[in-house]
Amino acid sequence: MSRTPTRLHVAADLRPGAVIDLTPAQTHYLGGVLRLAVGDSVGLFNGRDGDWTAILTVLDRRRGAAEAVRQTRPQREETGPWLLFAPLKKDRTDFLIEKAVEMGASVLWPVRTRHTQAGRINMDRLRARIVEAAEQCGRPGLPDLRDPATLESMLAAWDPARPLAVADESGSGRPFAAWIAGHAGPPPGLLIGPEGGFADAELDDLAGLPFVVRIFLGPRLLRAETAAVAGLACWQSLGGDWTRPPKGQDAP
Amino acid sequence: MSRTPTRLHVAADLRPGAVIDLTPAQTHYLGGVLRLAVGDSVGLFNGRDGDWTAILTVLDRRRGAAEAVRQTRPQREETGPWLLFAPLKKDRTDFLIEKAVEMGASVLWPVRTRHTQAGRINMDRLRARIVEAAEQCGRPGLPDLRDPATLESMLAAWDPARPLAVADESGSGRPFAAWIAGHAGPPPGLLIGPEGGFADAELDDLAGLPFVVRIFLGPRLLRAETAAVAGLACWQSLGGDWTRPPKGQDAP
Repeated sequence: MSRTPTRLHVAADLRPGAVIDLTPAQTHYLGGVLRLAVGDSVGLFNGRDGDWTAILTVLDRRRGAAEAVRQTRPQREETGPWLLFAPLKKDRTDFLIEKAVEMGASVLWPVRTRHTQAGRINMDRLRARIVEAAEQCGRPGLPDLRDPATLESMLAAWDPARPLAVADESGSGRPFAAWIAGHAGPPPGLLIGPEGGFADAELDDLAGLPFVVRIFLGPRLLRAETAAVAGLACWQSLGGDWTRPPKGQDAP
Repeated sequence: MSRTPTRLHVAADLRPGAVIDLTPAQTHYLGGVLRLAVGDSVGLFNGRDGDWTAILTVLDRRRGAAEAVRQTRPQREETGPWLLFAPLKKDRTDFLIEKAVEMGASVLWPVRTRHTQAGRINMDRLRARIVEAAEQCGRPGLPDLRDPATLESMLAAWDPARPLAVADESGSGRPFAAWIAGHAGPPPGLLIGPEGGFADAELDDLAGLPFVVRIFLGPRLLRAETAAVAGLACWQSLGGDWTRPPKGQDAP
């Protein structure tokens, strides 16, 4: 029985016979870590052409390449919520990114708020985390990683046709499931505040915007990464892609 | 303006005037880390008597104590899902425990399966993580931490009146939100498998049990801790305590 092929994200177009150059990191991973060899299969995807199986044609210390053989799964569009988050300390940001990819967020947008603690955001590291998480969870493509913005500029650029859900720590928000059930429109943005919470002036600004929906996420104080996963789960399970199993069955 | 008081879990009964001895760890935390002093307020809870405010009466290198003044919040019962999980590597288990507490799980039960990687489970460490997470998220009490059991013995001891939801990686499960919406009964158990998945024989055993519900948690492969948070979020948002904001409002 063959092992499940490793799945890698590549930039190149995928079609039968296409020879895809692997990055040095991918080459080292396949050869040095997994100890694959020429002739072994790998899975490839690029977010446009679906999932493909490919055969390694070159794998040595200097380079790696694979020849795409056939498509194993057609491209599927993903239209999950946008996740806007105040950056956290490194480990928790990495965790939040990984989970947001697993939970099908379509856009990841770091947003600086008044109480945001973290320093410079390492976008290369976030991109690497996104690719790894997408490869491992099997999603058809990568979420879009936006350049960091201040809360003010993000709100100024926000398309008002898309609701922006914000957890209301006062408990006055609307239960998120109830809002989702009544919502017919694009998936919302979900704005996750910093560990110190939003400043009063920021809450005033948010409350005044017509596209902002203040939501209730339960009686316990949630850490940012918990709120992100839980909020995305609410959406996916009620209004997103957790509602339709791929085989079309819904009996246990 | 006073700072938000620190909230500590204690074992002793709480009533006006009761003098509560603090543990050495609590004493060090309050005195050495937070640099509180005699006369400062702390919040105390024990899972039975609600939340109380207390005044520090002793705080030195050798001991600490606080006198309970008054109840600030009545005791609230929590009846969340049971979370049964195959132990993961230390950091991910700690994360799962912390999130399960934040998400209102009522019971946490480590379950050993055939593909469970981890070695000895450090129950003292898990108990400490539970207490910290409960203190910080504001929940009225601690979830019950069961002794580790094998999958077989857990299933043999399971009360069949409580459904046991298991994520079906084949995609044949029922969308969890749909099951929750149709369920009238106790909160389910949620069984999260090990990183290597369940063995075929284990899946056969599970499939044969009348209380097992195979659920669909979306088209992406979820890590164990992601599935735990997301599954708990589905329950809480549809059938649990995320449905009723404390102030009774549900308008944004």
